[in-house]
Amino acid sequence: IVTKLPKVGTTIFTVMSALASEKGAVNLGQGFPDFHCDPALVDAVTRAMQDGLNQYPPMAGVLPLREAIADKVERLYGHRYDPVSEITVTAGATQGILTSVLCAVHPGDEVIVIEPVYDCYVPAIELAGGIPVFVQMEVGAAGYSIPWDKVRAAVTPKTRMIMVNTPHNPTGSVMRAADVAALADIVRGTDILILSDEVYEHMVFDGQPHESLARHPELAERSFINSSFGKTYHVTGWKVGYVAAPAALTAEFRKVHQFNVFTVNTPVQYGLAEYMKNPAPYLDLPAFYQKKRDLFRAGLANTRFELLPSQGTYFQCVKYDAISDQSEADFCKWLTSEIGVAAIPVSAFYNTPKESGIVRFCFAKKDETLQLALDRLAKL
Amino acid sequence: IVTKLPKVGTTIFTVMSALASEKGAVNLGQGFPDFHCDPALVDAVTRAMQDGLNQYPPMAGVLPLREAIADKVERLYGHRYDPVSEITVTAGATQGILTSVLCAVHPGDEVIVIEPVYDCYVPAIELAGGIPVFVQMEVGAAGYSIPWDKVRAAVTPKTRMIMVNTPHNPTGSVMRAADVAALADIVRGTDILILSDEVYEHMVFDGQPHESLARHPELAERSFINSSFGKTYHVTGWKVGYVAAPAALTAEFRKVHQFNVFTVNTPVQYGLAEYMKNPAPYLDLPAFYQKKRDLFRAGLANTRFELLPSQGTYFQCVKYDAISDQSEADFCKWLTSEIGVAAIPVSAFYNTPKESGIVRFCFAKKDETLQLALDRLAKL
Ligand SMILES: CSCCC(=O)C(=O)O
Ligand SMILES: CSCCC(=O)C(=O)O
Repeated sequence: IVTKLPKVGTTIFTVMSALASEKGAVNLGQGFPDFHCDPALVDAVTRAMQDGLNQYPPMAGVLPLREAIADKVERLYGHRYDPVSEITVTAGATQGILTSVLCAVHPGDEVIVIEPVYDCYVPAIELAGGIPVFVQMEVGAAGYSIPWDKVRAAVTPKTRMIMVNTPHNPTGSVMRAADVAALADIVRGTDILILSDEVYEHMVFDGQPHESLARHPELAERSFINSSFGKTYHVTGWKVGYVAAPAALTAEFRKVHQFNVFTVNTPVQYGLAEYMKNPAPYLDLPAFYQKKRDLFRAGLANTRFELLPSQGTYFQCVKYDAISDQSEADFCKWLTSEIGVAAIPVSAFYNTPKESGIVRFCFAKKDETLQLALDRLAKL
Repeated sequence: IVTKLPKVGTTIFTVMSALASEKGAVNLGQGFPDFHCDPALVDAVTRAMQDGLNQYPPMAGVLPLREAIADKVERLYGHRYDPVSEITVTAGATQGILTSVLCAVHPGDEVIVIEPVYDCYVPAIELAGGIPVFVQMEVGAAGYSIPWDKVRAAVTPKTRMIMVNTPHNPTGSVMRAADVAALADIVRGTDILILSDEVYEHMVFDGQPHESLARHPELAERSFINSSFGKTYHVTGWKVGYVAAPAALTAEFRKVHQFNVFTVNTPVQYGLAEYMKNPAPYLDLPAFYQKKRDLFRAGLANTRFELLPSQGTYFQCVKYDAISDQSEADFCKWLTSEIGVAAIPVSAFYNTPKESGIVRFCFAKKDETLQLALDRLAKL
């Protein structure tokens, strides 16, 4: 059997989580909370199962959930997607991303990808027969930023899609109004599509808005917007998200979706629909995670790590050149084994080898967990 | 946006379910039970959620579930798959099938498909850039059978995969030892892979064995075996299944899987693992559905439908030429609207238009539901 994905091995998340548990390290590597979700959410899913809502839902998702999503997007971003024809529930954002790419990217099409990049983007392009075209973020004192002139220069007549991610994993940077304007400038007058990965949409800090592309009609009309309930409701293992896109894009998305997963767990969908009637859990999320960010940053300020900005997500990137000259991967292994705190090398998010001396911590952890990690890191 | 799947529209299952509910018809179309799953299974999933098992599971599935699957396959079919390297939990069999095809079929590869064929097979091949090569089942007094000489004649140097399905949807036919031997003869000495869709594995009737390819080492060594918990445990909406394949195939499968869905709902996996400790539910399933089949067939014997054999699955095919000369699709619409019983046209399972005057009923229904349908059909 000839491999379709020659470059793919075990993901860095799995590798570092395994090492962390082998070494008894505090796992600030893979992005998932170590605290529980709201019991009310568990109860809502349980009720749906007990009510016998266990057979196939409609292919695009149960209508109450699609309506709850449309309501939320409208409330927050001012754009009303039609729940019937423009919203599709997915088996997690990863499935939404692969399906968006598979339905839109034809063999030979170019897709612009901004590095560092989450690990599922490039394999999705390759499985569609597309060609990833890389533009690297720049990193300075103010943190990571997207060089839009280089994105513009990467556009060719074969460019089919640009993939963006805000808030951004792994860098914790967030697209601002100027970024959105630059993106709009680049695609205006072309038929380039956009895939916008917004799974951390409810984690933008410092009172800033999340610049969902749903806010920007001239971008929304060409965008597949991907989001995730796992990040928002502390249930990364439930594997449920959604894609919002204009009807013409959604129609193509669903053609692939229905022959990929066909549809998504019924009681989880009904439970989420019920739970979303209360907006407080997602409205409160920026403050919830900002407190954790601030606690973690305050602790790190006592170390020789140089803190990059964390404008959103539940990730904090740090430069470690005052501590070590190891490669990022080696430094993460050392940190896990010798200091007892697992992190993720940002180099794992580049396709062309790239060392920036920067690693990523996840602060979606109980305050005690963060404190334990900080106590260990204080040695540095 | 140029479509990737020009032939795909709304599935026949969705169309007929919608018409059934509009007309108040008894829905014997789409295959799903109208009765509840075992409350013990709901309780097991609920406990997992309440225990906080809500974060990412391992990419290939939680080990207790993979072990439970390996145990079941060994108990029933005498072959031990390694749970670590040979079993992957999927977000339903549809996802397992697309992923098997995407990881193994390269652009230009030929894949032999036996018609009538379940609706997700051909789009999966097309998304991989493969070429479906069709062989049609033959239908005689003894029901549907696979003409293996035609399958052999369809093999070319480009044949990468043969897709089989036993028990077979929609025909209810089951592969016997002679079928398996014929398939083995065809692939021996080639590097042709097999995708075996065995989602109805626990519904083979009349004391006959399910000829899982897991029983047959020279086939198992080249097969992706797909199964589903939804069919077995009356939870079609939970969207969870598995793929068993030798380690080398599983390695390629997981490369795509991890960038498709990444992984599958954690508490559902733990709940299933717990529930599978008791083998009775799947061991009792053949008798459970055979009783329903027999009840339904006995009732239909009073009509002018001609009954084809139903050797497995929860489907019963009938010839209606003594009743009507409408096309299968028109007959199903008429049956739904005028008689009040929904069925599925077998023509919907052919890529090249084909009318056999045969429609499919689903008998995975409460006895009362079947009786109500039979009362209505008695007019015929
Ligand atoms: C899918 S495992 C990785 C989780 C995650 O999103 C991350 O750590 O970046
Ligand atoms: C995925 S909806 C169709 C259910 C089914 O397997 C069938 O009716 O054949």
